[in-house]
Amino acid sequence: MRAAVFREGRFSVETVPTPVPGPGEVLVKVRACGICGSDLHFAKHAGEIIEQARKLGAPTDELERGLREGLVLGHEFVGEVADFGPGVQGTLARGDRVCSMPFVLRGGAPLLLGSSPEVSGGYAEYMVLSEALCLKVDAAIPDAAAALVEPLGIGVHAVNKAGIAPGDVAIVVGCGPIGLAITAVLASRGIDRIVASDLSPRRRALAREMGAGTVVDPREQDPIAAAAPVAGARVVVFENTGAPGMLGRLVAAAPQNAHIVVSGISASDESFIPMVAILKELRLSFIIYYTPEEFAHALELIRDEKVKWRPLVTGQIGLDEVSAAFKALEDPEVHAKVLITPWKPAVPA
Amino acid sequence: MRAAVFREGRFSVETVPTPVPGPGEVLVKVRACGICGSDLHFAKHAGEIIEQARKLGAPTDELERGLREGLVLGHEFVGEVADFGPGVQGTLARGDRVCSMPFVLRGGAPLLLGSSPEVSGGYAEYMVLSEALCLKVDAAIPDAAAALVEPLGIGVHAVNKAGIAPGDVAIVVGCGPIGLAITAVLASRGIDRIVASDLSPRRRALAREMGAGTVVDPREQDPIAAAAPVAGARVVVFENTGAPGMLGRLVAAAPQNAHIVVSGISASDESFIPMVAILKELRLSFIIYYTPEEFAHALELIRDEKVKWRPLVTGQIGLDEVSAAFKALEDPEVHAKVLITPWKPAVPA
Repeated sequence: MRAAVFREGRFSVETVPTPVPGPGEVLVKVRACGICGSDLHFAKHAGEIIEQARKLGAPTDELERGLREGLVLGHEFVGEVADFGPGVQGTLARGDRVCSMPFVLRGGAPLLLGSSPEVSGGYAEYMVLSEALCLKVDAAIPDAAAALVEPLGIGVHAVNKAGIAPGDVAIVVGCGPIGLAITAVLASRGIDRIVASDLSPRRRALAREMGAGTVVDPREQDPIAAAAPVAGARVVVFENTGAPGMLGRLVAAAPQNAHIVVSGISASDESFIPMVAILKELRLSFIIYYTPEEFAHALELIRDEKVKWRPLVTGQIGLDEVSAAFKALEDPEVHAKVLITPWKPAVPA
Repeated sequence: MRAAVFREGRFSVETVPTPVPGPGEVLVKVRACGICGSDLHFAKHAGEIIEQARKLGAPTDELERGLREGLVLGHEFVGEVADFGPGVQGTLARGDRVCSMPFVLRGGAPLLLGSSPEVSGGYAEYMVLSEALCLKVDAAIPDAAAALVEPLGIGVHAVNKAGIAPGDVAIVVGCGPIGLAITAVLASRGIDRIVASDLSPRRRALAREMGAGTVVDPREQDPIAAAAPVAGARVVVFENTGAPGMLGRLVAAAPQNAHIVVSGISASDESFIPMVAILKELRLSFIIYYTPEEFAHALELIRDEKVKWRPLVTGQIGLDEVSAAFKALEDPEVHAKVLITPWKPAVPA
């Protein structure tokens, strides 16, 4: 099969062996796979990530081997069942469209797709999934929507962790795909006071489409100030930028009893003054994943048309365009979510 | 009346005007008032606190005036109603023993006792309280126990914020009065896996008396490691030390999904790596106070003998010994909680 392989810091499209489904696994033909911000971050900062992990005493051998031998990234996908490994339960038929949390279960443990040369992700014509984790995708749901279930699942998780309720004020700092997913989920829950902040005019426009009532350019107005004090309203800040210094700034600016939900991955040291957080009784919740229930709920939100997903998809490319798309995605004015469709021609932006 | 006045960095016992209760206020004769860790911190670091507040852009004029003109500290008290201001509702009678959250309501706003020369605290023979905030203390409750309601209220608040339940593991880092109060409240809630950590052997012994099943000297064993991984158990870490670097160390050591409840006031910059907190989906809750319901609940815990308060009280002094007690309290082997009893002779330690 063809795959976009990330090796020694760059992508190349190669012919590699089609993976063989093991016990309880299915082979799926990839219909669409989103490029995730964490893939961009990884591709750009792999060296620093390894350096940081080493400093923290985490094992780095496997990751270094992966970067040397080549990884197939891609964890936001929808595929079509093409073949079965031994011992499947028969819950799926050939041709069923499925999405899945980005793991395969091997020896009882979940392995992250794309994290080693042996477990490839969706930047390829085929991939292998665990039957037990597959969710069937209704015929009415377009591929592009199904590929968004994964980032939307993070939005569901972030909003659940926030413990937010109608009447509260939500401030979404950073409107990349995760910030936009959070905004969409907030709107689906009836949160009607959403302030979204991003440096990019296009991202701000998307945030408005997703349900933000107010959007601000943080160079012109502080988003927390823009949220304005509403008497008695609890404030939840969603920090999705991972920008250096952002956490400290938000701790300093947050109002009394605010909850800061952090999805933005900053690999650098961040500092703040605990006394400030204590005097305001702040809460900080750090998030990265979702539960299986939250992932399934994201699919339901799509199916029931509770979120506006269409504006998020700003590009569709083939495997040959992956490298160029990674470059294009650096400019927030150009793209929000780009989908790789290995079997379809690219759609010009 | 006599009062221990904190001025220009030291205490002196002076004769000052007995405060006059305003509208809705009562005059109480102080029966006992605890010396709080925050008083110790304030007395030792007033200059740095002002410096830090200035850096953060907070107003410091009032505090500086207070330090110049003299403050009467003391916010952990029980008193006896001695007189009434105009317009009281008649809920209290002369001689009633009362405790109260450490505020008086003036012009609708709560003013912290001891925070300005006009609002004095319990290091004195008399103080003024808002009738609406006073809770009557049952005759069966000794003064020493009633004076502990305030720190115990913080323990109740910390445990409520922790969202902890039987089966979870609690790790109490720092066993000063707040850590000990947290331990006692945890035990009262049926949390049977409590690991407490303190440098001081005496504090560790007290933690055991309060209900910690395991106590560790952090120089010999990491408290998080000592808690041992219990499959499926959620871990809540209570950080009560405010020691420089402690927050970063706990973030690094905490297990997956741990909740860190921070009461330890560190006025310095603290840093940690958000990526570590994100990968483990940590939650940090910063706390300082309690709700009125939590304060009242602390009094009920004392009344219903749900907490062992006796071992906490390690000294009883008069106003003349305040300065010496502040020095003695620097050694955790000597004291946990010292009570000032302005009308009674000191009890030798």
